[in-house]
Amino acid sequence: MDYQTLLNIIEKDLETFEHEGKVADYIPELAFVPGDKFGMHLHCINQQDYSIGDSEEKFSIQSISKVFSLALAKMHKTKIWHRVDVEPSGNPFNSLTQLEMEAGIPRNPFINSGALVISDILLSCLKNPKEELLEFVRHLAQDDDIYYDEEVAISEKKHGYRNVALVNYMKALGNINNDVDDILDFYFYQCSIAMSCSQLAKAFMMFANSGKNIGTQERILKPKSIKRINAIMQTCGFYDEAGEFSFRVGLPGKSGVGGGIVAIHPHHYTVAVWSPKLNPNGNSEKGMRALEELTSLTGLSIF
Amino acid sequence: MDYQTLLNIIEKDLETFEHEGKVADYIPELAFVPGDKFGMHLHCINQQDYSIGDSEEKFSIQSISKVFSLALAKMHKTKIWHRVDVEPSGNPFNSLTQLEMEAGIPRNPFINSGALVISDILLSCLKNPKEELLEFVRHLAQDDDIYYDEEVAISEKKHGYRNVALVNYMKALGNINNDVDDILDFYFYQCSIAMSCSQLAKAFMMFANSGKNIGTQERILKPKSIKRINAIMQTCGFYDEAGEFSFRVGLPGKSGVGGGIVAIHPHHYTVAVWSPKLNPNGNSEKGMRALEELTSLTGLSIF
Amino acid sequence: MDYQTLLNIIEKDLETFEHEGKVADYIPELAFVPGDKFGMHLHCINQQDYSIGDSEEKFSIQSISKVFSLALAKMHKTKIWHRVDVEPSGNPFNSLTQLEMEAGIPRNPFINSGALVISDILLSCLKNPKEELLEFVRHLAQDDDIYYDEEVAISEKKHGYRNVALVNYMKALGNINNDVDDILDFYFYQCSIAMSCSQLAKAFMMFANSGKNIGTQERILKPKSIKRINAIMQTCGFYDEAGEFSFRVGLPGKSGVGGGIVAIHPHHYTVAVWSPKLNPNGNSEKGMRALEELTSLTGLSIF
Amino acid sequence: MDYQTLLNIIEKDLETFEHEGKVADYIPELAFVPGDKFGMHLHCINQQDYSIGDSEEKFSIQSISKVFSLALAKMHKTKIWHRVDVEPSGNPFNSLTQLEMEAGIPRNPFINSGALVISDILLSCLKNPKEELLEFVRHLAQDDDIYYDEEVAISEKKHGYRNVALVNYMKALGNINNDVDDILDFYFYQCSIAMSCSQLAKAFMMFANSGKNIGTQERILKPKSIKRINAIMQTCGFYDEAGEFSFRVGLPGKSGVGGGIVAIHPHHYTVAVWSPKLNPNGNSEKGMRALEELTSLTGLSIF
Repeated sequence: MDYQTLLNIIEKDLETFEHEGKVADYIPELAFVPGDKFGMHLHCINQQDYSIGDSEEKFSIQSISKVFSLALAKMHKTKIWHRVDVEPSGNPFNSLTQLEMEAGIPRNPFINSGALVISDILLSCLKNPKEELLEFVRHLAQDDDIYYDEEVAISEKKHGYRNVALVNYMKALGNINNDVDDILDFYFYQCSIAMSCSQLAKAFMMFANSGKNIGTQERILKPKSIKRINAIMQTCGFYDEAGEFSFRVGLPGKSGVGGGIVAIHPHHYTVAVWSPKLNPNGNSEKGMRALEELTSLTGLSIF
Repeated sequence: MDYQTLLNIIEKDLETFEHEGKVADYIPELAFVPGDKFGMHLHCINQQDYSIGDSEEKFSIQSISKVFSLALAKMHKTKIWHRVDVEPSGNPFNSLTQLEMEAGIPRNPFINSGALVISDILLSCLKNPKEELLEFVRHLAQDDDIYYDEEVAISEKKHGYRNVALVNYMKALGNINNDVDDILDFYFYQCSIAMSCSQLAKAFMMFANSGKNIGTQERILKPKSIKRINAIMQTCGFYDEAGEFSFRVGLPGKSGVGGGIVAIHPHHYTVAVWSPKLNPNGNSEKGMRALEELTSLTGLSIF
Repeated sequence: MDYQTLLNIIEKDLETFEHEGKVADYIPELAFVPGDKFGMHLHCINQQDYSIGDSEEKFSIQSISKVFSLALAKMHKTKIWHRVDVEPSGNPFNSLTQLEMEAGIPRNPFINSGALVISDILLSCLKNPKEELLEFVRHLAQDDDIYYDEEVAISEKKHGYRNVALVNYMKALGNINNDVDDILDFYFYQCSIAMSCSQLAKAFMMFANSGKNIGTQERILKPKSIKRINAIMQTCGFYDEAGEFSFRVGLPGKSGVGGGIVAIHPHHYTVAVWSPKLNPNGNSEKGMRALEELTSLTGLSIF
Repeated sequence: MDYQTLLNIIEKDLETFEHEGKVADYIPELAFVPGDKFGMHLHCINQQDYSIGDSEEKFSIQSISKVFSLALAKMHKTKIWHRVDVEPSGNPFNSLTQLEMEAGIPRNPFINSGALVISDILLSCLKNPKEELLEFVRHLAQDDDIYYDEEVAISEKKHGYRNVALVNYMKALGNINNDVDDILDFYFYQCSIAMSCSQLAKAFMMFANSGKNIGTQERILKPKSIKRINAIMQTCGFYDEAGEFSFRVGLPGKSGVGGGIVAIHPHHYTVAVWSPKLNPNGNSEKGMRALEELTSLTGLSIF
């Protein structure tokens, strides 16, 4: 059965999928996104593309951007792991308790505190952080039609008290070097990146292709770095539900509160899915279900 | 390069491997094991065997037994996950804080509290729990020369205050049905199982073979259950170091304080390694290194 | 206005006192106590007695006994404070989290973990702990009609999983010397002591009389030890409601889940009150209100 | 023995008092204060004054100011306790864990988070918060020579990341109404108030005099409010050492990292002491010792 047939089956099966998920509403820009949007795009290692639904519509990638910034930080700086750990957190993604217990070292780069440390690292090693990060993502996706959504960024900043708390607390504990306002500005912009499923699937192919750009075959990261990032996606990519995702889908991946999820099957494919309604853990309900069905149908789970 | 050549390379490379690991010493039976023991056994999906060092010598499998008891519980009872969660813990393996925060529901079946709940479940559905568990393991390994080490079991019981605390606390919180002393007795026996690398590798083949006994091809667990257990091994198999293991080795697995580690590469092989000296997280130092080298050399990491 | 008039006013005022309190029901022996019982006894430094209601009826003093065992431990052993701290806990009385954070040293001797350490200390320095503790309480009250309620003790033991957890956990952390079963037996007996308001008020006079028995004027504890115990009652005597009690009543005291409360006004009086219905923090609703009214009417709060 | 003689004895006894205390050094303005400063002032209910050492020298009152702002908030607004609790914290004074566990409600108004909530309340009910707070303190002390130390305030702001974290976190949790920057500005100014022991002792007399200004006998707060504030000082006035202070000194009081401590003996006296070297809990070593000696010598402890 080819991938397009599989996606069509999934689309059909999920037409009547009922769930209690809710669109994120902490900022109006996310709250106004129609809850019934659904798109999915699978990009093969042989560069074939398969898609269903709203797979070309852009949405706010939110925390999915943490994978890009981590990859960019690894490109520029080898030493990261003394400032952010690589272990799953076992706590909601924005826990201050964890930071307090562990002296300001975030458990991993995909919880907010960890991503803020990565932002701090990027601010220290990039000249024009915002431009360079955006350029990096565009290059990965081989697509220049990717941008920051300024309204989202500004709105995040207005409601981002918890992130302000996190970065100031880590500054107090000595794990932040740059000005906290600069870090927060960069961080909120990064979360506001707007991309489609199709663009996300292509941009993530580097992680399924041992660190090489699938289009140009240019090496971006060493296989060892890719192995690390993929392992972190596997154990930490889904807030307090990494185990459940691993268990249901069985692929490394990353989700965002915009309703997007990207997953990779190393050496085989990448797949991005988008559906804005979230479960109580902040992951797309329908998105998780679609990925679960994909790996069940293909039998291509890593487990 | 064939697996035997790989193992020989690993053996040679690790001859001079220096580290700060220490043999577990909380009970004399473990403390007296010579620290320089080292064995490794790889069992292929085609039933070929490859080994180095002390791969036929039995050691105390300790927490590796948690995978067996979880599998046995899944065989007998479908509903488990309302009593023990499937998320990584982000805390040391014996944390009472986690239990207190989460109303007596352990984060996963591989931390001690979770394994005690599984013991409680087995006590409720088995007639002769100790005999049946041992029989199950022998059957998986197709080898009757596997037994409980009574001296270890008795010694564990003498020093197991923390486990007594855990099970009583969960009883207070309503997540334990059987008598606490019966549970503890069963739990300590289970930890005392003595097996060799060779036996472990064979017994774990069921998890790499979609739930079928590799020898008889008899179905033991459904593929879906296997996917779940493997996912839990991936995210929770290494105490507070699951991320690091995932990151260095990239395979689902489980370790024990006896110095053993088993890992599986689904549909390819299982591998067991034994070296008694542990790192501060309770995982075998040399064992982890050997597995890391194996997946680096084969390039067969799941990531 | 003399004390008897005051107590009569309080009795009258509280006749119509409505509240949501509930009788403790974790053991049947406590659950069966009629919820409308109410007694109060004030014992003056000049040995005058004043009382209302069921002031001569015995009830289970429960945690109030922790003050007696602490006093007895101080009589026999000077060094206590390296094994149990003197700070308020800011957590429910039976928290394992606090113990985990602070390496097995309970925050104070009036939370369960702290009282278990005191029991351990008494087991080490007394020949016949149960007899000697009972004798001590009888001597303080100058009344031999005080006894252990065996049914309560046995019932507590049957349901005391949380205390079993606490003492085993501290044993694991090295802060318990004796056999855990011996400690628990002694602890549950101590909680089962049955006394009346009148007996309690008299027995506590030692704490209001600088350490001397009010009847015989014999010195039992040094003024400095009394100051310490009173200070601990002030800051830690009411589970997670010490501040509220201090704030409403303003006197050092101790409560128990049997519905009893004893408070002392150093150099003036002691007062014991009993009403079985508890607020969500485990303190007698009507008892707290009665004491609040007493200190409001007398203006004799220490603040 | 009169109070002056007592103070002279204390001064003499403490001349050779050796300890490991250290001057607070997180901002240069505090670090540069000579560590051997020592002053003490006792103000009697009959308005007699007694003093030793540097009792007229101003220092940064820091957290002692929290008592003033709480009193001012109680003057203007009856409802406070739904936004800040009255229980001792059992955690260091700036814990984010406590806030996380308890949904943004600080344990009491004397930990930093609680004081920030009080600042927020004052911003909502005062027209010119800074002026009105300073005026309030001057009025209590009947002394206009009290001022904000702007250099301290600015320096606090530069290093106050932890307080920025606390207020933003509470804003995220819905317990902050005003702009966080305004609150922080007001908070840091309040901490920077400079006063002498003599001024502090006089200003605190209101708390020992049932809520009336000792000079004018004008009523400032109701006796009930005073009883509450004094009770909070008793149980929460000394960071994570309230129990120890209660235990050694036995009086309600409040300390600051500038090395000042004020204590009150209701209806008798107030006493302020200053010595900049702090113990590990942030309380003045010599200050605590001096107060301990005072209550031992007078026998006037409330216990």
